[in-house]
This record gives sequence, C-alpha cells and structure tokens, in this order.
Amino acid sequence: MTGEPGSAGRQRVAPLPLGQVRIDDDFWSPRIRRLREQTLPVQYARLVETGRLDALRLTWRPGDEPVPHVFWDSDVAKWIEAASYSLATVPDPELESRVDGAIELLAGAQQPDGYLNTYFTVVQPGRRFTDLRDAHELYCAGHLIEAGVAHHEATGKRSLLDVACRYADLLDREFGRGPGQRRGYDGHEEIELALMKLYRATGAERYLRLAAYFVDERGQEPYYFDLEAEERGTPGYFGDHFADREADPRRYREYLQAHLPVRKQTEVVGHAVRAMYLYSAMADLVLDNGDESLLDTCRTLWRHLTTRRMYVTGGIGSTADIEGFSTDFDLPNETAYAETCAAIGLVFWAHRMVHAERDRRYADVLERALYNAVLAGVSLDGTRFFYDNPLASAGAVQRREWFGVACCPPNLARLLASLGRYVYSAGPGEAVVHLFVAGGARFEVGGVPVELEQQTRYPWDGRVRLSVRAERPVPLTLSVRVPGWSRRTRLTVAGEEHDPVGQGGYVSVRRTWRDGDELVLDLDLSPRRTYAHPAVAADAGRVALERGPLVHCLEQVDNGDRLSALALPAGAPLHTASTGPDGALSLLAEGMRDGADDWQDILYRNDPPSRQPARLVAVPYCTWANREPGEMLVWVRETGLP
Amino acid sequence: MTGEPGSAGRQRVAPLPLGQVRIDDDFWSPRIRRLREQTLPVQYARLVETGRLDALRLTWRPGDEPVPHVFWDSDVAKWIEAASYSLATVPDPELESRVDGAIELLAGAQQPDGYLNTYFTVVQPGRRFTDLRDAHELYCAGHLIEAGVAHHEATGKRSLLDVACRYADLLDREFGRGPGQRRGYDGHEEIELALMKLYRATGAERYLRLAAYFVDERGQEPYYFDLEAEERGTPGYFGDHFADREADPRRYREYLQAHLPVRKQTEVVGHAVRAMYLYSAMADLVLDNGDESLLDTCRTLWRHLTTRRMYVTGGIGSTADIEGFSTDFDLPNETAYAETCAAIGLVFWAHRMVHAERDRRYADVLERALYNAVLAGVSLDGTRFFYDNPLASAGAVQRREWFGVACCPPNLARLLASLGRYVYSAGPGEAVVHLFVAGGARFEVGGVPVELEQQTRYPWDGRVRLSVRAERPVPLTLSVRVPGWSRRTRLTVAGEEHDPVGQGGYVSVRRTWRDGDELVLDLDLSPRRTYAHPAVAADAGRVALERGPLVHCLEQVDNGDRLSALALPAGAPLHTASTGPDGALSLLAEGMRDGADDWQDILYRNDPPSRQPARLVAVPYCTWANREPGEMLVWVRETGLP
Repeated sequence: MTGEPGSAGRQRVAPLPLGQVRIDDDFWSPRIRRLREQTLPVQYARLVETGRLDALRLTWRPGDEPVPHVFWDSDVAKWIEAASYSLATVPDPELESRVDGAIELLAGAQQPDGYLNTYFTVVQPGRRFTDLRDAHELYCAGHLIEAGVAHHEATGKRSLLDVACRYADLLDREFGRGPGQRRGYDGHEEIELALMKLYRATGAERYLRLAAYFVDERGQEPYYFDLEAEERGTPGYFGDHFADREADPRRYREYLQAHLPVRKQTEVVGHAVRAMYLYSAMADLVLDNGDESLLDTCRTLWRHLTTRRMYVTGGIGSTADIEGFSTDFDLPNETAYAETCAAIGLVFWAHRMVHAERDRRYADVLERALYNAVLAGVSLDGTRFFYDNPLASAGAVQRREWFGVACCPPNLARLLASLGRYVYSAGPGEAVVHLFVAGGARFEVGGVPVELEQQTRYPWDGRVRLSVRAERPVPLTLSVRVPGWSRRTRLTVAGEEHDPVGQGGYVSVRRTWRDGDELVLDLDLSPRRTYAHPAVAADAGRVALERGPLVHCLEQVDNGDRLSALALPAGAPLHTASTGPDGALSLLAEGMRDGADDWQDILYRNDPPSRQPARLVAVPYCTWANREPGEMLVWVRETGLP
Repeated sequence: MTGEPGSAGRQRVAPLPLGQVRIDDDFWSPRIRRLREQTLPVQYARLVETGRLDALRLTWRPGDEPVPHVFWDSDVAKWIEAASYSLATVPDPELESRVDGAIELLAGAQQPDGYLNTYFTVVQPGRRFTDLRDAHELYCAGHLIEAGVAHHEATGKRSLLDVACRYADLLDREFGRGPGQRRGYDGHEEIELALMKLYRATGAERYLRLAAYFVDERGQEPYYFDLEAEERGTPGYFGDHFADREADPRRYREYLQAHLPVRKQTEVVGHAVRAMYLYSAMADLVLDNGDESLLDTCRTLWRHLTTRRMYVTGGIGSTADIEGFSTDFDLPNETAYAETCAAIGLVFWAHRMVHAERDRRYADVLERALYNAVLAGVSLDGTRFFYDNPLASAGAVQRREWFGVACCPPNLARLLASLGRYVYSAGPGEAVVHLFVAGGARFEVGGVPVELEQQTRYPWDGRVRLSVRAERPVPLTLSVRVPGWSRRTRLTVAGEEHDPVGQGGYVSVRRTWRDGDELVLDLDLSPRRTYAHPAVAADAGRVALERGPLVHCLEQVDNGDRLSALALPAGAPLHTASTGPDGALSLLAEGMRDGADDWQDILYRNDPPSRQPARLVAVPYCTWANREPGEMLVWVRETGLP
C-alpha cells in the first residue's frame, strides 16, 4: 500500500445511484437483458412453485408439506431486491406488479409488533429469537431490509421500506446492552450491512447504532450462542447437521466469525459468505462512522484473504464441509467450493473498501471476482446456476436451475441488476471510474449537469474512451482506475499524453473539462501467464492464463478429453481468436499432449509418456460449461522451464 | 499373457503349509517378531477392553452399553486366525491358552442348531438371516470358519473346527435352491472363500457346493436383497448410512458386486474388500472345481483392476464414500482410500490366481501390494495401523491404535503371520519360489526329504541364493519368479550361467539336484522412475521412484515442508543410502525447489517461481509415518523432459 490515499477519499465520493448510470455494453448488456428476460421470471416461477410465496400467507399447519424453511423469506426478499434494481433502470409494469404482489404478502405476514418471519410465525410459534445461531432469523430480516431500501430507491414507494423499518424498530427494542434487551447477534451475518443501508436510506441513527452493536457484540465472552443454547435446551436448527459441534467449539465459533471480538480478528475463517457480509458491515462502519480501528482490522483481514486464501478466479472458501475457509494456501481445484455467494460477498466488501481507501488493490480484486468467480455462476442464457465453482472438473459438473438452499441464484440476480453501482463513484468536484463498462453516468458539478460517457469494447479490447458532456466547461477531477495487471498502459487527456500513474493505482486528472473533452485509456490486454505461490500445492508446476480481467480455462469441447495430459511449454506464444462461447475471445497456444496410444493395457511403466504437439484453446472461465458437458481445467501444466 | 502356462500348473502345485516354511529374514523376521510380541497381545487387549470377548458370554441385555456390533465376532475370529498362524511357526503356551479361551467363549455362544452370532442372538434375537445385505452375518460366519481351519492346521485341535463345521452345516441346510431354503447370499463376501478352505480341510464336498452356490446366486434376478428388504420391511442395518440407496439401486448393487451374475461381470466395482474376497472365492472354484469359465471372468476382472484402478502401491479402492472403486484412472493421491484390507484382499486373490495360471503378472502385483500398500498399514513397532493409505499427505495423516470398525489390524496380523504361505508352492517333482524371503522350505521329492534354503538380503540386495539340501540326488523342477521389474537379471545354476527367461515369467530348472547345489538369481535393483498412464490426472507430469519391489516416497522430515514445491529433473541420477527409517535404503537425487522467499504477501504473479537446488530423499513407502509427523508425497513433479 502506498501511503494513506484513502483517508481523504473516504468522505469524498460515493457510488452513483443506479438511476444515474447507463449501461450500453456489448459484454454486460446482453447479460443484464437475459437477467431481466430470463432470470427474474424464472426465479419468480421458482418462488411460486416451491411454495415460498404462498408460505407468506401463514396458512401452514403442522403436517402440511412442504414445511416452510428458515431461509425462505430471504429468497423472496433477494428476488424483490434484484427486481427493484432492474426497475430502477428499465421500467416493466408486469415485473413491478409482481413485486407489489410479493410485498403485499410480506406486509400481510408482518405481525402487529413488527415481527416478520414465516418459519417462526407458523412452524415454531413462540420460539422467536431463541436460535439466532442456526435459524437465520436476523439474516432473513437483513434481506428484507435490503429489499425495502432497494425498492424505495428504485420506485419511490415506501410500501416495503415501511415494513422493513417497523421490523428494524422491533429489533432495536429487542437487541442491545440495555436492561431487558437480548445481547445477541446473528449466526449468519447480514443484518449488520442491511441496517447500514437502512440508516443511509432513512437517516435514522438508531439503525447505525444497532448495526455497530451487532458488529461489536460478536465474539464477546461469555459466548452468546453458548448461553442461548443452554437456555434453549435443544441442539438448534442445525444440531443434526453438525455432529461434531459440541466436540469442537472453537471451529464452530470460527464458522460464524464469533470466536473473537471482531477487532481482534486477524484471519479470515469459517463460512465464507458470513465472513464477507460481516466484513462489509465493518467497512460500512468505517465509511459512515469514521471507525479507523475497524479499518485496520479490515486491512489485516483483506491482506490475509487475498494473499493466502483466494482462488485466482476471485473465488473464496475452498472447502465444502463448512462452505468456507480451510488453511493457508489450501486451494484445491477440483474440489474447490468457491461458492458463488461468497464471491458476490467479496465484491460487496471490496466495493466498500475502495471507498474507505482508494486503492486499486480492492477494485482489482472486485473486478477479478466479478468477471470470473461471480459471472461463471450463471449460464450465458441466464437460466442455470452454479452454487460451487471448481477450477477443474472431470466432466460431471453442470449448472442447475435451482437449489434446495437457493441463496446463489437471487444473489447473482441482485448483483448483476445493480452492476451500475460498481462502475462509478462521484462526490464534490470528482468523478471516479472503477470499472470499464460502456454507457455513461450523470451527475452535477457545481450545479452544472454533466454526463460522463464511456465507450469501450472491454474486456475484448483495452481502449476506454471517457468523454465529458456538459453545457459549459466544468472544473472536475476525473479519476480512473489503472488495473494492476495492465503492464504497458497509455493515457491521453484531450489528445495529450499523460502519465498513467496515480496514487493507489487511480490516475486523477484535475482540469476544466469542456464539452467533448476525452480521456483515452489504453490498457494492455496482452495474454498473461500467472503463477501461484509455491505453497499452493494444487498449482505447483502449473500456470493459469489470463487476459485483462478474465481468467481462462481449457474445456474438453475445444481440447479433447484428458486435459491433464496437456502441457504448455514455458516459452510458447499466446494468441487470441474469436472462437469462444458467445463470441468470447479464446487464447490459443501450441502445447503438448502426453500420448496414450502406446499405453494399451499398461497402467504404470518406466518410460515417460511420449509427447505430441497439441493446440491448446483456453476460453474465459466465466463462459465455461455453456456448450457440451466435459472436462475443464484452469491451471495447466507448464513444461520446459529453464 | 503368453499361451496358457497355467493350465498344467493349476493342478500341479499348491502353497506349502506354514509348518514347512522357515523365515529367517532381515526384512521380515523383525516384523513378524513384532507382530508376535506387540501386535497380537495389543489386539487381544483391545478385544477385551472393547467388550468383544465378553459379548460372547451372551449376557447383554437391552440398555447395556456398549451394544455388540454386527462386526464384533469377526474381529475375534481374525485374531484367532492370526494367532494360530503364529502358533504354527513359534510355540507360545500363553498365546495358545488365550486362543483356547476365546474358542471356549465362541463354542459357548453357539446355539444348539449350530448358529453362532452374538448380535443376532442377544441384540436382535429372532431376526437371523433377515438382513444379509447389511448385517455381515455370513461375513462373520466366514471368518469363524477361516479361524477354525487355521487353528486346526496349526495345532491339530478340532475345538474350533468342529464349531465351524456345525455352523457351516446349518448354513448348508438354510441356503440353496432346494425347497424351503433361502436363495440368499452375503452382502459382504467372505463366506465363499471360507467354505472353500473348510472343503479343503475336511474334504466334505457340501462346503464346495455351498460356496459355488453363493458365488453363482449373486446378482441373479430378481435381486435377493430387494426381496429381502421388502419382506423385512425395515431399511436394514445401514439404512441410515446410505441415504441415497433407494434412489440409486444400481450403484448399491455394484457396491456389493450383486448387479450382475458374477460370470457376466467385466469391471471391478463397488466396495474393494468385498470385491477381492469374492474374486478370491471365484479363483478357488477355478482351482478346486476346474471351473474354466470363472477363470475367464477372473482374467477379465484382473486386467480391468490392474490396468485401470490400482495405485502404484498396489492399493485399491480410491474413494472413501463407498470404500471402493470409482471410475477408470481416477486415482487421486491425497484422498486415496486404498484401504489396508483391500490390499490384503488383493494379495489373497493374486495368490490364488498365480496357482490358477502361473504368470508373474499375478505374483508381481501380489508383491507390489504386500511390500507397499499392505506393509504401510502397520507401524514399524507393530502397534499402530492405517485404515486408509493415501499416496500424499499434507501432514495430518497418522496411524492409530485401533478403529471402531476394526477390520484392518487383525487382517494385517493374519496376513503377516501367514507370510510363509506366500513364499513357496510345491507339487509332484516341483518347487516354486514366488517371493524372496530368507529362510527355507521343507518338502519331499519321491519320498526323499528336501530342504530348499533361501539366502538373501532382499529387498535391499538383489542376490537370491537357493540351495538344495537332500540326502541323495533328487530330480526336481525348481521354478523361480523373475519379477517383471528386473531389467538385467542374471541366473546361475550350480555355477553355470542360465537364461533368466521362462514361461509366464517363472524360470524353471529341471535337473537332478545334489546336496548343496545352488541356484543364484541376481535381480536388478537399479532405482526406477515410474510413470502413470496419461489418463491418470493426479499423476500427470509426475514420477514415482521405485527400487525392487518398493515404491518410495518423500517425507517432510527428510525434505522440509512444501513437498509440492519440489521437482526432479528428468535426467538426474538416483543414488541409494542407508538413511531410511529402521535401516531402510533411501533414494537420493539432486532436485529443485520452487523458492518462496520472493513471494512475500503475493499469492499470484506473472513471474514463475525461482528454482533452487534441493536434495530429494525418498524412503520406502512402507516405512512412512514412523518418524515425526509431516507431509508425504509419492508422485513427485518431473521437470526438464525433452
């Protein structure tokens, strides 16, 4: 890190609201259109089919099937949130009426005191707030609040926001360190960042204070979840699932980041999605509460995550058994869990961090996760999803339409529908470009309406043309991220060469911009060979191929089977060709294949395999598993190193 | 395969009884002594401590802890079998009295009609033979019979043999295709090979016929286990364990090799130990019943196993989820299951196959499994055991003293205690040497007592000196296996050079031997680099180091941590040194290590790791995990291939 570039930036700029951002991009627009036309309707149909919406009518009686699940309310809320983001950019009366219908059901399910949770209203009445560790109660509350804020921002309607506020007010009465209050916090973090959004949307400081309470109460001794379990006298909702929980309390406190007070935490541990949502809320408290000590904690955790426990795709959480982190450098490829939601959570956290201190380290990781681990989570046609995202497959891995635990599909939908939030930030006298997405942003400078137009064919082409449109000249600092991976970057401002180097990896050009003035950034999209730290056993002797923000992978459909038999010589040039799925650029190289012809009925022998020339074709990882099923491999063997 | 070398051999030779074999060998004798002095007493103590012996008193009542487990009787039987083998070679009154005590308990537990099973006598009375698929009832019967035969051969006593016969007679009445008989067979094969042993020990053909019935009834439609489950109306003993059994009937029929009639089976599938015990019985039926069609089936299954699904260590069954086989060439190293018992089962099957047709393919695999996958299963001090035998470890894998399901420790004990059975075979006018173990064998040739003395320091030295001791000259064919891995073998007979090539890889020297005549075999123990078929993804770009019958591996204690960062250049010479555990020879080579010093806080970068020279030390796999805990690796990366 270079100096403290962020401390000024922290207060200065904020993400632009969705309504001020236009996306008209060859790479993203079709994906967002498919989201609108395919993903949102399909997901709505699933909410109906699976009984998630009907459950809100509270007519379930013991013996009925299906039994409402503790997660169900959150799936409805995430869908409303995603649909709201979509409505913020493209009006759609049918979608809006579905949203209103779902909100009506939620409002109808709200209890007179503000409480809103299907499971604890009809399946376990009278047990509310007795199983915070397992039962996802505050997690569901958080998603309800996020949906309420998104819906209000998109439509101006208060229908769901008011429901959310009433519930949040109940939580504010219920939880805290005052007399008669519960000193609890959620097993699955989410409520914290949601309350921060509600604070921003309403200005009501009690929500900020409640979020700060939840963050800081976490991990204090005596451990709340131990007291809660003792009082409850039952093993909890996941009691059967985690057979060894009693035997290994430390591991299961780490599982939900409650092993230590958060300010004493130095390692990213446990369930990866939970961790990301917690760290996002911590960064929110840095941004909105000026909490510098939490910033130090966030920096330490960020460094640990990104230098020890992150896949090259930006996927995180390598082990399925806790859906989370294992040990440093343990990044197996074929068994990688790398849950889609965890990569989405990393985008959330990184987005907050780059506003806490403007450093491209955060935005580079955001972009890495977004273009790779996140985007691979949805099929090109927008109808099928990955829950876990391995970096190698023997052929059996395919996307599915839905999951019993259906967190990932609506989470993907809400991220893609709100992509505009991640492209630009703005503040007094400054606009910042974080991502390269064609379209534009509208904002004001000293009362003058300005449009910043972005033209680019990124990620296929490295040229990014930013044009200022304004009725009269405006003094403006235009800051642009220069990604860390771009080795030979060129920059011109109004036709003149400009040094492409800036503090924290953002070039800032302060000048008076006239209508039509351009900043042109030429990023170096030469294909790159990428190596992992020698402690990553799974990647030893192997190389990953990258181009711009995209990690590439080999698929059987292009390379034949037995991908493990392929190797790439160290010096072989990498070329590009427009042969990938959906028009994606592939990387091509002349490699080698271990021949199997002379191994008839031989499993082991003393002569090494003979090597034959083989053309290697690597497509963007985000496009894999969209053609015929087959093997996939990110990390390719490299041969002939000096 | 070359011609049909076995068809004559099939009838000609048989393994020599233990009492006629002497082992006085630097490599094996200390192991067998530790078995006698450590393993057998320790295992007896476990039988007592865990209640397995006491359970035979049949005093268990509902509510008592522990509840006798369905496997328990087999643990007692396997221990008696192992102890009997030990008594056959080394008298030990204390051990014999413990054996007699255990037999007394077994005899006391036998019901008036011959039935003998603790679980179904006290825990589930009245339910005998209703859950053959899951409850290991005939499996326990099989081990009881094997113990009875071994005890009789070792001591001449009939105490346990008579118990076994009474039980086998009950089974003969109960099972079969006759009126009123059950057309069942065991879920875990074992009874079949046990009945073949009982047939050989008693000459009673009903046992042979019952074994043949069990083998051939397996996999016939309608599937017996489906009928049995329907009749029983409960999910079976492992109903909870296999949640997806109803959903995937084919997989769970394959699990116990009951998906097809055995003569139609062409692929080794399912639970590896079960498969080996079944195939062993099939080979027994070839040997004793002249069943040529079963020999064809065995050959097909053997080829499939050894060319698609066997680790270089001779370990088999790569996946833990069914303790068995997955798919062709799926041989992951770190997660290898490779159960000790499965490798032992492979030794059993290979031993029968080499008597069905004399071909070193079988004995080479027998030796590979014995010296590597089997022997690694027990610590050098004889007190701790591996259940599964991975070929790579990140450091957490260590042997344990005992297991809840304790099949492996007594199985190892009975194999090591009966090692002599695997060294020699003899028949009219011929003696065969399969394994190189110093000591000797006694047999008669035309009424003349002959001793064949074997002197060798194998596997550390390749010279094997076989001397004939006889009162007068004897016409004898002396056949010796020349292992397939020995590239430059020399052979002299009575001082004269002899061509070291023979049918099926066994050199046969027919001559009149005088007292003191010697056959000297010089095997080529040059260290070998071994490569796996290019379809084995886990071993791509990697090499295993072997010397003689021993597969070697790298351990952290010799090589430092991060073994995956090490690589062996293709041309690097391999040297030997006496630095291994327990005096074992190590292999040494000058290799390379990917340096981590210049990766501070970097997880991915575009410059490849720098390489530093590093001495690689590889110890025999069978000696690993006997010093300090740490990483282990069999397949090392190879660099610099042309």
